[in-house]
Amino acid sequence: MAADNLIDGRAIAEQIHAETSQRVAALKQRSITPWLKFIRVGEDPASKVYVGMKERTSARLGIHSDTAVLPESTSEAQLLELIRKANADPAVHGILVQAPLPAHIREQVVFATVSPDKDVDGFHPVNVGKLMLGADDGFRPCTPAGVHELLIRSGVSTAGAEVVILGRGNIVGKPMAAILCQKDKHADATVTICHSRSRQTAAHCRRADIIIAAMGVAEFLKADMVKPGAVVIDVGVNRISDPTAKTGSRLVGDVDFAAVQPIAGRITPNPGGVGPMTIALLLQNTVKAAERATG
Amino acid sequence: MAADNLIDGRAIAEQIHAETSQRVAALKQRSITPWLKFIRVGEDPASKVYVGMKERTSARLGIHSDTAVLPESTSEAQLLELIRKANADPAVHGILVQAPLPAHIREQVVFATVSPDKDVDGFHPVNVGKLMLGADDGFRPCTPAGVHELLIRSGVSTAGAEVVILGRGNIVGKPMAAILCQKDKHADATVTICHSRSRQTAAHCRRADIIIAAMGVAEFLKADMVKPGAVVIDVGVNRISDPTAKTGSRLVGDVDFAAVQPIAGRITPNPGGVGPMTIALLLQNTVKAAERATG
Repeated sequence: MAADNLIDGRAIAEQIHAETSQRVAALKQRSITPWLKFIRVGEDPASKVYVGMKERTSARLGIHSDTAVLPESTSEAQLLELIRKANADPAVHGILVQAPLPAHIREQVVFATVSPDKDVDGFHPVNVGKLMLGADDGFRPCTPAGVHELLIRSGVSTAGAEVVILGRGNIVGKPMAAILCQKDKHADATVTICHSRSRQTAAHCRRADIIIAAMGVAEFLKADMVKPGAVVIDVGVNRISDPTAKTGSRLVGDVDFAAVQPIAGRITPNPGGVGPMTIALLLQNTVKAAERATG
Repeated sequence: MAADNLIDGRAIAEQIHAETSQRVAALKQRSITPWLKFIRVGEDPASKVYVGMKERTSARLGIHSDTAVLPESTSEAQLLELIRKANADPAVHGILVQAPLPAHIREQVVFATVSPDKDVDGFHPVNVGKLMLGADDGFRPCTPAGVHELLIRSGVSTAGAEVVILGRGNIVGKPMAAILCQKDKHADATVTICHSRSRQTAAHCRRADIIIAAMGVAEFLKADMVKPGAVVIDVGVNRISDPTAKTGSRLVGDVDFAAVQPIAGRITPNPGGVGPMTIALLLQNTVKAAERATG
């Protein structure tokens, strides 16, 4: 088992953080502090963890953040009002509303209310549209953009490669496909999107040069579904029960890592692969928003 | 050679026109006449033909249209000013700026200036984004939406099907992929997008249940690239030289129709396949815009 086939997401995220820090320093020389506003509704434990990690990394890079914590009972109208205030506040450069939201609040309405210029998550329809159109003046969603950077900075060439994406969600699968099929030397892949209704997912995976697993099914990708030498990127975060764990459960990805790693040419660990990249791209987007807003 | 495997785009377009006419009549009972504004810049011969066809079909369905014809020398700023006037005019429900535009005008800027509520071509980033997100409150681009309707109304099931799309353009390829991979009983396909940088396009085509050819390469899809019984949709419109033709040239699709028809399960003729559907969806979008604007 060759440990040297790992794609180190933490190290690559640190490269991006270093670049972001320099851009923050340049803004501060102009007396501008990039400001990222988090909005969290309710007490979803995972959301608390994620927002906490983003807050700490922001602080480390010199980005100012504040977090509005709203009760579970908050109405959609109240949340939209708060977003509109942040949209109108020139000191705020980026706004992130942490998903998932309580069931009585429509996520798509919320994401479409964030000003496209402050939409550092890349979820506003206009930014999604710009991504699909190949325009470079929008914000790309952080996880697929993070996977893209991971491939580029690992020296994995996508041009002409057979890429299979597992999952067709709005946050990863669909934008990932849009990014990788673009006419661009860092894209130009032949992309296939498989999902729960696909009938030949294993066969597609077996012919893939690059597999990006974002289905949300614990350890879905098995060793016999991977061509020797293929690049495997694991986006999944699934909680499974584990009686031997202190909490009775543990997190696993969409890839059966122990079995797949010896076969893969390159593979992301999980954790330590895609996760850190998502935060790196979020903070890169935030600095970009601050740079644009301040000329 | 079985002629009964043809998918008759003209007949299916007429079904949609009949539905659109009924909706026009219902609007007229409320003293509302749907109004579609065409804007054409320069004297591109194909654009003149296309706009003329759309004008005549509008009139036949009771949709009012007018066409602003601007000289080739029109500046981008002048064109944007005209679009903004049409955006602000409550009598105008739909706006279509005919592509291609002269080289000094940026198409993406023009398309993004049309109000999303009047964007019956479905080219505004916010409508592109809504399409990708699976939201149903936008306007879908007419050609891929037309192909989708053609499949549905021909009884071609896409759920679980292997679909290969040839071409990754913003007008057909990319939105077509987004439509067919959605979680929906009329979509749910396993979609592969091939393009000029793909290395195994023929192999992908040979395994496809449905091939949608939108590459813009004359008669690209040959008989040996098609699985017997596959459904073949030809979106291409290519002018090739033909010394035997009066004009010295003729139009052909992206499919070698004579060779592929005997092998295909179902196939669109070209012309008479996708073309009429594009206009049908444009006028359906126009009536939808008028209905929405007038409550």
